[in-house]
Amino acid sequence: MIEGGSTRSGSGGLTYGMVGGGEGSFIGGVHRKAIALDGLALIQAGCFSRDPAITRFTGEALGVADDRLYADATEMAKKEAARSDGIDFVVIVTPNASHYSIARTFLQAGINVVCDKPLCFEIAEAEELIALAKAKDLLFCVTYTYTGYPAVKQARAMVASGELGDIRFINAEYAQEWLATPLEASGQRQAAWRTDPAQTGKSNCVGDIGSHVENLVHYISGLKISRLCARLDIFLPGRVLDDNASIMVEYEGGAKGLYWSSQIAIGSDNALRIRVYGSKGSLEWAQENPNYLKVAMLGKPGEVWSRGRDPFVAHAQGFSRIPSGHPEGYFEAFANVYAAFCRTLLARVEKRPIAAEEMDFQTVANGLEGVTFISKCVESSRKGSVWVHLD
Amino acid sequence: MIEGGSTRSGSGGLTYGMVGGGEGSFIGGVHRKAIALDGLALIQAGCFSRDPAITRFTGEALGVADDRLYADATEMAKKEAARSDGIDFVVIVTPNASHYSIARTFLQAGINVVCDKPLCFEIAEAEELIALAKAKDLLFCVTYTYTGYPAVKQARAMVASGELGDIRFINAEYAQEWLATPLEASGQRQAAWRTDPAQTGKSNCVGDIGSHVENLVHYISGLKISRLCARLDIFLPGRVLDDNASIMVEYEGGAKGLYWSSQIAIGSDNALRIRVYGSKGSLEWAQENPNYLKVAMLGKPGEVWSRGRDPFVAHAQGFSRIPSGHPEGYFEAFANVYAAFCRTLLARVEKRPIAAEEMDFQTVANGLEGVTFISKCVESSRKGSVWVHLD
Amino acid sequence: MIEGGSTRSGSGGLTYGMVGGGEGSFIGGVHRKAIALDGLALIQAGCFSRDPAITRFTGEALGVADDRLYADATEMAKKEAARSDGIDFVVIVTPNASHYSIARTFLQAGINVVCDKPLCFEIAEAEELIALAKAKDLLFCVTYTYTGYPAVKQARAMVASGELGDIRFINAEYAQEWLATPLEASGQRQAAWRTDPAQTGKSNCVGDIGSHVENLVHYISGLKISRLCARLDIFLPGRVLDDNASIMVEYEGGAKGLYWSSQIAIGSDNALRIRVYGSKGSLEWAQENPNYLKVAMLGKPGEVWSRGRDPFVAHAQGFSRIPSGHPEGYFEAFANVYAAFCRTLLARVEKRPIAAEEMDFQTVANGLEGVTFISKCVESSRKGSVWVHLD
Amino acid sequence: MIEGGSTRSGSGGLTYGMVGGGEGSFIGGVHRKAIALDGLALIQAGCFSRDPAITRFTGEALGVADDRLYADATEMAKKEAARSDGIDFVVIVTPNASHYSIARTFLQAGINVVCDKPLCFEIAEAEELIALAKAKDLLFCVTYTYTGYPAVKQARAMVASGELGDIRFINAEYAQEWLATPLEASGQRQAAWRTDPAQTGKSNCVGDIGSHVENLVHYISGLKISRLCARLDIFLPGRVLDDNASIMVEYEGGAKGLYWSSQIAIGSDNALRIRVYGSKGSLEWAQENPNYLKVAMLGKPGEVWSRGRDPFVAHAQGFSRIPSGHPEGYFEAFANVYAAFCRTLLARVEKRPIAAEEMDFQTVANGLEGVTFISKCVESSRKGSVWVHLD
Repeated sequence: MIEGGSTRSGSGGLTYGMVGGGEGSFIGGVHRKAIALDGLALIQAGCFSRDPAITRFTGEALGVADDRLYADATEMAKKEAARSDGIDFVVIVTPNASHYSIARTFLQAGINVVCDKPLCFEIAEAEELIALAKAKDLLFCVTYTYTGYPAVKQARAMVASGELGDIRFINAEYAQEWLATPLEASGQRQAAWRTDPAQTGKSNCVGDIGSHVENLVHYISGLKISRLCARLDIFLPGRVLDDNASIMVEYEGGAKGLYWSSQIAIGSDNALRIRVYGSKGSLEWAQENPNYLKVAMLGKPGEVWSRGRDPFVAHAQGFSRIPSGHPEGYFEAFANVYAAFCRTLLARVEKRPIAAEEMDFQTVANGLEGVTFISKCVESSRKGSVWVHLD
Repeated sequence: MIEGGSTRSGSGGLTYGMVGGGEGSFIGGVHRKAIALDGLALIQAGCFSRDPAITRFTGEALGVADDRLYADATEMAKKEAARSDGIDFVVIVTPNASHYSIARTFLQAGINVVCDKPLCFEIAEAEELIALAKAKDLLFCVTYTYTGYPAVKQARAMVASGELGDIRFINAEYAQEWLATPLEASGQRQAAWRTDPAQTGKSNCVGDIGSHVENLVHYISGLKISRLCARLDIFLPGRVLDDNASIMVEYEGGAKGLYWSSQIAIGSDNALRIRVYGSKGSLEWAQENPNYLKVAMLGKPGEVWSRGRDPFVAHAQGFSRIPSGHPEGYFEAFANVYAAFCRTLLARVEKRPIAAEEMDFQTVANGLEGVTFISKCVESSRKGSVWVHLD
Repeated sequence: MIEGGSTRSGSGGLTYGMVGGGEGSFIGGVHRKAIALDGLALIQAGCFSRDPAITRFTGEALGVADDRLYADATEMAKKEAARSDGIDFVVIVTPNASHYSIARTFLQAGINVVCDKPLCFEIAEAEELIALAKAKDLLFCVTYTYTGYPAVKQARAMVASGELGDIRFINAEYAQEWLATPLEASGQRQAAWRTDPAQTGKSNCVGDIGSHVENLVHYISGLKISRLCARLDIFLPGRVLDDNASIMVEYEGGAKGLYWSSQIAIGSDNALRIRVYGSKGSLEWAQENPNYLKVAMLGKPGEVWSRGRDPFVAHAQGFSRIPSGHPEGYFEAFANVYAAFCRTLLARVEKRPIAAEEMDFQTVANGLEGVTFISKCVESSRKGSVWVHLD
Repeated sequence: MIEGGSTRSGSGGLTYGMVGGGEGSFIGGVHRKAIALDGLALIQAGCFSRDPAITRFTGEALGVADDRLYADATEMAKKEAARSDGIDFVVIVTPNASHYSIARTFLQAGINVVCDKPLCFEIAEAEELIALAKAKDLLFCVTYTYTGYPAVKQARAMVASGELGDIRFINAEYAQEWLATPLEASGQRQAAWRTDPAQTGKSNCVGDIGSHVENLVHYISGLKISRLCARLDIFLPGRVLDDNASIMVEYEGGAKGLYWSSQIAIGSDNALRIRVYGSKGSLEWAQENPNYLKVAMLGKPGEVWSRGRDPFVAHAQGFSRIPSGHPEGYFEAFANVYAAFCRTLLARVEKRPIAAEEMDFQTVANGLEGVTFISKCVESSRKGSVWVHLD
C-alpha cells in the first residue's frame, strides 16, 4: 500500500507549489487531495489566482507561508528556484491557454513540472517543452488521470503480454451530457471557458475528453495512430467549438479504431469506456465502474476481473490500497499518477536508480501526442472530414 | 394478447408456404415457430430444399400434404396460384443470392411475399420488386426481426412524439464474435456462405448485421441518411468480404450518426444496441436485454422502462403477451413481425379497412433502403472511405 | 432444435384438451402458445369456462370441433376417454381450488394430466393424486415453468457434477410489486382470487411464488428440506393471506437456506433469483435475465456463462432453439416443460424406451413437495415462526 | 467541497494520535489516508504497536516526533492529556478485544475518541463508555464507514421525508468470500484473529459484517429492532465462530426485516446491499457501486439516481467532492465520517454552535446498538434460533 506521511519528513521531503487552483476553481483541489491522500508531498508555495486576494486566502487555508505566495508564475519560478528549500515541483492547473507559457517558465527556472491536460495548443509548443525538459533534465508529468486506475494498468499488461493476441480493433468513447444545453449562456464559469476558443484552444469536445480517449487507448494498447478521419459536430446554435465528435483511426501495423466523444449525450455522466479486440480475446473497461475489467477469451466464458480479488499483475496491484469490493475511485487514480511521479522524483533526489516500469506516469511526450491528435482531428474535420496523416 | 388458433379455422384461414428452411437450415425453423406461437397461419406447402429428399422429409415432419411439396420455386408458385385453396403468402428463407428471383416469381404469380433480409443484392432489383408488388397489389414483408420488440416500438413512439426533442446524434452498433476465427475454413456451413460473395453479395458484415443497424435506426428515428463514409475492414487473412465496419452517417435535417458492426468482437454474442440523443432526452435499447428501455431526460434521474410495468403506448404494449418481468425474446419479436403482417393480410382478405399504424411491418421499400445502404457503404469503402451521397 | 409440426401428423399425433383458460383468463393462453411454439400437440377438446358461451367462443377461436366442447370437466373426461381419437392429455389451468378434483377426474378416466401449480391445497390430496397416477400408470406433469430454462438446467448439472463442491448455503428470492396496493379492492380479477383463501388456499404469497422458490432450489440443488422456520407477513390492512414471507430452511445433510418472497416489493416485476454457494464455487441465476448464469469458482475470475456461447452440458443446450445473444424467454421455458412431457408421452405411446434424464419435467411428486412446503410454512408462521419439521 | 489543509494551520488546528495501525496492519493506514484526504487533522502522536520497534518505525515514516511515540495506550493518554498541545482526539484501530479498555483510558484522560467498530464485546462495557463520555463531555465516534457515502445519506433523507411512505420491509445483506476456505490455518493474520473468539469476541461473521448491516439499516431507516431470530452457521470444520448468518428481525412499529451476512459466499467481494420497501416506493443501494441509488416509486418507471447529477438533498450532496461520473469510493466515505466528526469537534473547540444534522457521525450510542445486536443474535442462535427481544 502506498503511504508516505502527512508531514514534511513523512513525505520523504518532497514539496510542491501550485499555479492556479484558487478558491472557486475545481481541479486544483482535486490535485491537492490526490497528493494528500498518500502524503507524498507537501504544498509549500502557490500562485493560486491572478487575484492576489484569492491567492492569499487560499494559501492561508492551506497553511502556505505568506512569503511563498506569489503574484505571478514568473515571480514564483524565480524565487522558488533561488531558495535552498525551494519546491521540488510545480503543479499547473490554470485554464488551458496558459499551460504552455507557465510550464516553460518553470522549466527554464529548473523546476520539475506537473501539468494538467491538454499540455498546450500547438504542436510546436509541445515540441519546445519536450526539448526544454530534456535540456534541463527535468521531469514533466501530464496528468492523464485515467491511466492511474489499477484495472487500466492491468489492461495494459494483458495487451503487452500478448494474451489477447494481435490487437485488431478498438472502440472507445467518452460521453457526457453537461453541454447538452447552452450552459455557457447562463454564466456557468466552467462552461464559459470550455466553449471559448481563446481559453480552451481550437477544440472543446475533442480537446477536453476526446484527448482522454486518445491517451487511454495509447496507454493500454501501445498503438500509434497513423491516420484519422474526424467529424467534429456543433449541435448547439451559437457555439464555435465542437460539442461532439466521431473519429475513425488507423494505427501503425494495421489495427483500426473508432472513437466517439460527446458533451451532448443526455444521461451520460462521465462515461469513458474502452473495448479492445484482439485475435485471441478482448477486454472492456468503463471509468464509471473502474474496479472491474471485463475479459473475454475465445473458448472461455466471459470473465469479470475484480481489483483485489483476481490476479492483477504485481505492478497494477501495487497501485491499489484496499481489498476487493471496497471501491477505489477517481481520487485514488489521480493519487496513483502522483505516486509514480513522486517515486520517480524521489529516486532522482536520492540518486537511486529506478526501473523504467516504475516511471509509470504520462510525460510531456504523451502531451505532444495529445496536442497532435487534437490538431489533426480539427484539420480533418475542417477539410470536410477527410483522412489526414500523423507523422 | 395476440392469439389465433392452431388449426385452420382458428388461424383465421391464413395459410402459407415456405421456400428454403429444410432440415439443417436454421432460420426456416425460426420463422415457422414464430408463426406457430400465435397460430396466425398454417403451413400447407413447401419447397424446402433443392434436394427433393430433404423437401419430402421436412414436409412430412411438418404435416404438409405430399402434393404440395414442390421441386422448385417456379413450380410451387404456379401450382399454388392455380389452386382455389392456394397459400395466402410465401415465406422465402433461402440464402441471399436467390431472394430476388424467388420473390419475383411469387409476385408474378400473384402471391404475397415474406422475405428474409437482405431483400436482394442490387438497387435495381429492389426497385423492380417494389414496382411489381405495387402493380400486382400484393403485400411484401421483409423480416427485420428487431423491429418486432415492444420496447423498440415504444422507442419509436417516444421519438415520434417529440419527447426527446430534436434528434441530434445516434450511436448504434451490432457486435458479434462468431467470425473472429477462420470458421469458414473449418467447413461450418453458415460461415462458408456468409463469407462467400457468390452467396452473400458484396458485403458480409454490413450486409448481414450492419443492415440491421441501418433498419433499426430508421425504424426508431424515422431519419433518412443523406450521406455516409464507411470503412469496411477485413481482419482475417484470406477473406474477401468485410468482417468489421465503421460508418459515419449524416441524416437529412442535420442529425448525425455513428455505426459499428463487427463479427470479430470476441465476447459479443449478438450485441445490437442503439442510443438516440435528442435535445431534451435520450434513450437506449439493447437487443440482449430487450424488455427494458433506458430513458434519460434533462433534469430527471435516469429511468429504466420495463415492458409491462411502465406506460408503453398502447400500440407498443399491444405486441406484448405476458406481464412484466416474464422475459419475451427473439421468437416473440419475430412473431410480432408476422402478427402485423397477418393482421394486414387478413384485413385485405376480409376486405376490412386497417389503420396505417396497424400495418407495422417492414416492407419491400425498407428492403430497398437496406440494399442501398449496403451498396453505398461498399462504394465508400472501395473509394478509400470517402463520403458518398444517397439519393 | 425442438420442432414438431403444426398439424396432427406433424405433431407426432399428440392431442390435448384444456380445462379453464377461456377468454379473459391469462395462463391458459400461455400454455397454448407454449405448446404451439414447437407444434408438439394439437388442441382438440376443451371446457374453457363454467360459462358455456365462453367455452363455445374460445373453442371456435381455437378451431376446436363443437362436439368436443364440454359443459364440465366430468363430462369431458368421460367422453374423451370413450373416443378412439380422444385426447392424449388434459391441461388444467383453472384457479387453484379446483385443481385437485379435476385432476382426479381425468386420472380416473385414464387420461394423462398436466396441471398448473400449485397442485392442490392439502398434503393428503396430493398423496391421493400420486397414488392414483401410479395405479393408472399415467403421466402427471406440474408446470413449474422456471425449470424449463436451459441455464437452470445447466445450473442443475453443475451442482450434480460436484463442480461447486459441497453445497453449503442457498439464498433464493422471488420479489414482485403487484400487490403493494390493495389491488383486490379495485375489482382486479387476478388480485381478487389470489387474495381469497377460498380460491387460492391457505397462503397467497408463499403459495403463488414462494413455492416457485422451493421448487427451483430443489430442482437445481437436489436438496431436501428437513425443517423450516417461516414468517408470513400481511402488510396491507384487510388482507387475510400473506403478501410477503421470510423463510429459514435446513436441508438434509447440513446445508442451509434463506428464502424471501414478496408481492409488495415496489420496483420488482418478477424477480426470481437463486444463489447457490458450495465449497468450491457458486452460481447465480435470475429469471429476468434468464440466458445467463453467473459462476464464481475459487481462484478464478467471476464468469458469466451465456446460453449458446458457453459449454452448457448437452442436455441443457438441447432445450435451446437459437444462437447465443438471441434472447429466449418465458414462453420458451414453458415450451421446454411441454417438450420434455410430450417426448416422454410419445415414447410411451410408441412404446419406445426413454432415458430417465429425458423425462425432465416436474411431476405430481414435486407437486406434493410444493404443497408440503406451503403447509409447513403456514404452520410455522401460525405457531409464532417456530421451527417445524418436514417428513 | 470539503477541504482543509495539509499542514497544522490548514487543518484548523486539529491533531490526533493513533493506537494500533502499525506496519503490517491494514485499517490504520485507511484511517490515516481518510483523514489526510481532506487535511482535517494532523497525526502528532502514536502507539502503533505493542512492539516499540514497530511504533518507532511507523512513527518515523509518518513524521511523528519521537517524544510522542508511546509504549502503551495508558502512557499515551496520560502524557498527551498533560501537554498543552496534546492531541485533540485518539483513533483506536487495535483488534476488537482491546477497544473497550483503550477507549476507557482515553475518555478518563479527557481525550475525545474515534474507535473502529465493533465498539466492544459486552453491553455493559458499551453502557459504561456511554456514561463516561457523557460525564466527561467528550465526543465519541464509532467508524461505521458505510454511513459516509453520499448516496446512503440521500437514502436516509428519502426515508425521513416520507417519500417512500411507511416502511414495510427491509432486505439487507453483506456477502464476502474470504473465509470460504480455512484461511486461518494458513497463518493469514487477519483470518487468524477474526476467527479467534479471544480476539474477535463472541461472533465472527455477525460481529464483523452483520453489525454493518444492522447499523446501515438503522442509519437509513431510523427503525429500532424489537426482536430477532438468528441462525449463525459454521460451515468450515474446526471453526468455533460463525462464518454465515441469517437473521429475521422485527422493528418497533410493525416493519419487518431479513438480514444475511456471509464470509463463505464465493464470488462476493464486499457485497453490502440494502433494499428498503415502503408503501409508496422503494430504494436500493449497493456498496460496490456506491455512487448510485435505485429508486422505484409506484406508477413511475424505475430510476437510477446518480451522485452529482441528480437532486440529492444538500446535506448528502455536501459530502461529495467531485462531479457525477467520477467515482468516489471507500476512502471518500471514510473521510466523510471524519469530516463530520472533525467539524463537530472544531465547533466545540471554537465554541461555535453546530446544527444537530451536521453532527452526522455514528456515536458510542450506535456502538451500543451494534454490541446489543451481536449479543442478541448469538443468544438467539445458541437457544436454537428462537425469537429474542431487545429492550
